[in-house]
Amino acid sequence: MDKAVVRDVLDKVRAEGRDALTAPEGKRVCDAYGIPTPREGLATTADEAAALAGEIGGPVACKIVSPGILHKTEAGGVIVGVEGADAVRDAFDKIIANAKAYDASAEVVGVQIQQMLSGGHEVIVGATTDPTFGKVVAFGLGGVLVEVLKDVTFRLAPVGTAEARSMIEGIRAAEVLRGVRGAEAVDFDALAGVIHRVSTLVTDFPEIREFDLNPVFATATGARAADVRILVHTGEVTEPVRPPREEILRVMDRMMNPRAVAVIGASDQEGKIGNSVMKNLINGGYAGKIYPINPKADEILGRTAYPAIGDVPGDVDVAVFAIPAKFVPSALAECGRKGVPAAVLIPSGFAETGNHELQEEIVAIGRRHGVRLLGPNIYGYYYTPQRLCATFCTPYDVRGGVALTSQSGGIGMAILGFSRTTKMGVSAIVGLGNKSDVDEDDLLTFFEQDDNTQCVAMHLEDLKDGRAFVEAAQRMTKKKPVIVLKAGRTALGARAAGSHTGALAGDDQVYDDILRQAGVVRAPGLNEMLEYARSLPLLPAPKGENVVIITGAGGSGVLLSDACVDNGLSLMDIPPDLDEAFRRFIPPFGAAGNPIDITGGEPPSTYEATIRLGLEDPRIHALILGYWHTIVTPPMVFAEVTARAVDQARAKGIDKPVVASLAGDTEVEKACEYLFDHGIVAYPYTTEKPVAVLGAKYRWARAAGLLT
Amino acid sequence: MDKAVVRDVLDKVRAEGRDALTAPEGKRVCDAYGIPTPREGLATTADEAAALAGEIGGPVACKIVSPGILHKTEAGGVIVGVEGADAVRDAFDKIIANAKAYDASAEVVGVQIQQMLSGGHEVIVGATTDPTFGKVVAFGLGGVLVEVLKDVTFRLAPVGTAEARSMIEGIRAAEVLRGVRGAEAVDFDALAGVIHRVSTLVTDFPEIREFDLNPVFATATGARAADVRILVHTGEVTEPVRPPREEILRVMDRMMNPRAVAVIGASDQEGKIGNSVMKNLINGGYAGKIYPINPKADEILGRTAYPAIGDVPGDVDVAVFAIPAKFVPSALAECGRKGVPAAVLIPSGFAETGNHELQEEIVAIGRRHGVRLLGPNIYGYYYTPQRLCATFCTPYDVRGGVALTSQSGGIGMAILGFSRTTKMGVSAIVGLGNKSDVDEDDLLTFFEQDDNTQCVAMHLEDLKDGRAFVEAAQRMTKKKPVIVLKAGRTALGARAAGSHTGALAGDDQVYDDILRQAGVVRAPGLNEMLEYARSLPLLPAPKGENVVIITGAGGSGVLLSDACVDNGLSLMDIPPDLDEAFRRFIPPFGAAGNPIDITGGEPPSTYEATIRLGLEDPRIHALILGYWHTIVTPPMVFAEVTARAVDQARAKGIDKPVVASLAGDTEVEKACEYLFDHGIVAYPYTTEKPVAVLGAKYRWARAAGLLT
Repeated sequence: MDKAVVRDVLDKVRAEGRDALTAPEGKRVCDAYGIPTPREGLATTADEAAALAGEIGGPVACKIVSPGILHKTEAGGVIVGVEGADAVRDAFDKIIANAKAYDASAEVVGVQIQQMLSGGHEVIVGATTDPTFGKVVAFGLGGVLVEVLKDVTFRLAPVGTAEARSMIEGIRAAEVLRGVRGAEAVDFDALAGVIHRVSTLVTDFPEIREFDLNPVFATATGARAADVRILVHTGEVTEPVRPPREEILRVMDRMMNPRAVAVIGASDQEGKIGNSVMKNLINGGYAGKIYPINPKADEILGRTAYPAIGDVPGDVDVAVFAIPAKFVPSALAECGRKGVPAAVLIPSGFAETGNHELQEEIVAIGRRHGVRLLGPNIYGYYYTPQRLCATFCTPYDVRGGVALTSQSGGIGMAILGFSRTTKMGVSAIVGLGNKSDVDEDDLLTFFEQDDNTQCVAMHLEDLKDGRAFVEAAQRMTKKKPVIVLKAGRTALGARAAGSHTGALAGDDQVYDDILRQAGVVRAPGLNEMLEYARSLPLLPAPKGENVVIITGAGGSGVLLSDACVDNGLSLMDIPPDLDEAFRRFIPPFGAAGNPIDITGGEPPSTYEATIRLGLEDPRIHALILGYWHTIVTPPMVFAEVTARAVDQARAKGIDKPVVASLAGDTEVEKACEYLFDHGIVAYPYTTEKPVAVLGAKYRWARAAGLLT
Repeated sequence: MDKAVVRDVLDKVRAEGRDALTAPEGKRVCDAYGIPTPREGLATTADEAAALAGEIGGPVACKIVSPGILHKTEAGGVIVGVEGADAVRDAFDKIIANAKAYDASAEVVGVQIQQMLSGGHEVIVGATTDPTFGKVVAFGLGGVLVEVLKDVTFRLAPVGTAEARSMIEGIRAAEVLRGVRGAEAVDFDALAGVIHRVSTLVTDFPEIREFDLNPVFATATGARAADVRILVHTGEVTEPVRPPREEILRVMDRMMNPRAVAVIGASDQEGKIGNSVMKNLINGGYAGKIYPINPKADEILGRTAYPAIGDVPGDVDVAVFAIPAKFVPSALAECGRKGVPAAVLIPSGFAETGNHELQEEIVAIGRRHGVRLLGPNIYGYYYTPQRLCATFCTPYDVRGGVALTSQSGGIGMAILGFSRTTKMGVSAIVGLGNKSDVDEDDLLTFFEQDDNTQCVAMHLEDLKDGRAFVEAAQRMTKKKPVIVLKAGRTALGARAAGSHTGALAGDDQVYDDILRQAGVVRAPGLNEMLEYARSLPLLPAPKGENVVIITGAGGSGVLLSDACVDNGLSLMDIPPDLDEAFRRFIPPFGAAGNPIDITGGEPPSTYEATIRLGLEDPRIHALILGYWHTIVTPPMVFAEVTARAVDQARAKGIDKPVVASLAGDTEVEKACEYLFDHGIVAYPYTTEKPVAVLGAKYRWARAAGLLT
């Protein structure tokens, strides 16, 4: 790929203050990056035109080349489908005559003689500059139908040819390109090559704002763009500020594992936020130093108070702000002078209320003094390994592997309530609020290397720097799942997000494709995010795609099968020997196959034997259990039998994901709790939830490369 | 529409034992029903051919007509795109020569000269005989893309032109037909006319098995089928047995409101089904007569026992069977002789275990003696208005307006557990099992006129008679919602259903379209079916499409907006005066518009004032509330304030659906219970569920014609 040529073209365009490339410039750029375009040449005489057409072969398009004529068709400067030397000569003469008649003063360079493409399928390859993610590359089928059906897919640029192939294979109408009704398949490698080259080009030259190949003719033997359109930025192109990873980690580690926390605006008065924060720090069991800052008190809740943070004798890692917004700037500057690396800004009254100036002011102060800001407009944060509860909400003490973050305080409260009622094991809950500084990628960078965190779940309405997020998420998902609830999925939701945070919500299709590219498990709604967060760390990673359903209720088996399809899971084709082995345990009228229907009237031993077989056969990778409440096998008996079988398998080193749907009277609720306590994800009165959780685990495992 | 012509054509085809019509026969049928086909004629000489082509105008297709030549193209018997008298003459001669060369012995009738259609859009109109629903009509766009994307829609035939238009407007690519990129819209009335006529034709002549117009050229001025293909049944065409409505009602009423119930196989022995059924009848509080039948006992649980049903002194309305399968036929015959109208067959061991003969035997006995059968292979049924608990499960006593049915026993148990834990008000729970006789349409016929039932929710894997179901559902949905969970939605699920009940699961697209046509609210999963059942009777019917979100948490507002789009709800465009009115109650940085974001720190009075305004302004038709747990407005205070506002509005005759999403700590769970008790559908930790319930209510209200 010849960067020098492109540099040369773009410099000229920018020097002339244009924001669009001419067709010949576009072709030079394409040629430099090996992007195939129609064979063509410039003719200055009718004979040259005929000769060129002869070399190109087949029908040609003839187009006027004149800097003064912008609307070629209007000027009669385009004749297409011309074939044969005489016809080409006639077309040349006619175009020159038309151009003169249209504008006698326009300089005429000549007539472009261009190969006309046809056959195969018309597709679109493009790239654009997304406000969230920067350069993204797009692929779709051309034509009015797909324009209507919006069958298009996006990736963060650049993409390798493998990722480019996944784009071609990922559109809904991919089957068309594979060849239907006896048609030949298009050349996927050639097409992937075009996508790859376009994505590399826009990455190499950030000033290319938009790039369109529309249409590209994809045939069995290649892919060639019939038309190219390139738009450039005329202004300065700036990249977001990204602190180096070590710097992020240094501050985030002091924020999460502080040796000293100061509370600015600490108070003795019940109901004040500065009082709640103090109480939560103390009652939560945080073992580090706690410094209340309050000029009007000597002691607060038994701790020595200081008039200002500068008066604190030792180092301070975190300053939690519980003072009105207008006092934040000066206190923040004091923190900076004291060398506090992290400020947790609970107060509201910044950008979310329209006060953008005040928010910009604190961001500038933080930058100047090297203080990272969490918030403002947040409930604070929890980090349970340190028993740290730096929030005005109530303490949370069930330690575990999930870190949760939310952009909205309301969603944060829902996280807390759900966690408490389900006894979810949590490492951290973090409010991000206005995200004036610290955002999701900073947190991901910390949680990635945090041994106390096994999984991260994030509620977000926008991303300040989508590319930094994707890079952090891609690193993390190699080891641990990242679950994202992206609010503002729909146009209405995005409108609401706009009025809420002033955030520019990206087009959801872009988010959806790129979050998937990042390996993120996207949750469709709040409840799913919470359930995935609760359950994913409990399940071991599956080692293959073979899922087996064992059910006592045929009716559940049908619904569980539906849910498997909905969640992209593959029901294993049971080989004959295994089928035979299952049949030994079930009644003659039970159905082996998959689902394995052990039928309703069976004793605990049937559940136990089939579950054991499912666990012990190495060809099976995950189990979905459908329990039916009967007198013969009551709910708690089923739960105990199942937990024992799973425990014993684990003792032998067999660790497969097991999920269960319990259909029965209210005792199944207790049985589900028991199963959850034993690492089996189990839900009552639903066949969808357990399968959705397993599906989420599989999506992560595939993204992490565990199932190739 | 000229039925005599079609009758004549079809009789001839049947008389000849053919199962397909020839092209000229197809054209006669189309002509008789006013379905436009290409202009055409038969030429026996080259000159006739040229003259015909001249009359038709434009390019023509020439096709050999010879009963002996089936594969016309292979025989060189088709030449298309012929234009001009000489060319037509040449084509005629060539076709005749080709035919002779291909098969010298074949009789040649002549050459068909046919108008070639082009322009506009190619669409498909067809009809087929679905095993579940009988005649269904289909519509889709033609072409390879739509074949791949499966963008096609179905309706039960016949359809009127309005329903036909809804098909055209209902496909995903409908925009194409409305005209994109400046193209003209096609003539929707003409196209709807074709669909209507096809649907009428196949209804008038049930022996037409399949009917295909592919393609139909739809243009701005009309719609004309280029090709017609008609297949007929060669055997006898039978219609399912459908008892008259009065007859169904007479038996169902005695089943649901019996004055005397006999238990065949009643027992004193703990753990026996015949013992559980007796106990449940007695302890459930059923006030009618209970007759235990057992040849070995004089008295069971304090009731006089009889050796056989024939020995019972008075009339018996229902016989509950709790005996092994093999004893069922003789006992059933006895019931018949006694004049018992309804048998509830709990035993398993029939079709579900492969014993189809035994099931056919009892069905025949039932028919012969006029006994309707519920089951076999069921848990029994509940009807709470009579405190009737004719099941081996435990009694259920929360009376209310929902009737639930399930094909599977496991799902029945999940219904029972969920009902109990949510205190759902239930009128009936009915097991349908193998559906050897009584099925969903019988139950719908009863529940439609049952004042104790306000809503029906049905789990089903198949329908024995889809058409009877649709007719019953269409009647019922005019008054009350019908919720359906159709299991076996996916290919895998349907396979599982196949192994479970031997039921032939219909193609889901057909089910989906026709259930919608019937006005049914389809639940995507078990939990949704249960939540809709619980909540729909609580909500009043909305009177218009204007939905307003009032939220304390901006973050919830975004997610609730997303959920509105997902569930087909329209956020109202708030007019300026109403916006102004809301603004008076909320802080200056709160966002009016919709969602109305009252912001997080507001006192109960702000929730109350905005909710009251939302209830009292007649332009608003439904409210979605987003609550954020704060110290200023704790969960129970929000619940009380909201319930009071809704109660007071109801007292004034204002009854709008109100749903709420509560984000907060665990106290929100109690607040949700309180709200449910006051007729407000409220869920903690989810923004999706309350909106999904409201969406379901809207789908019903639209189907019932309440929102036109």
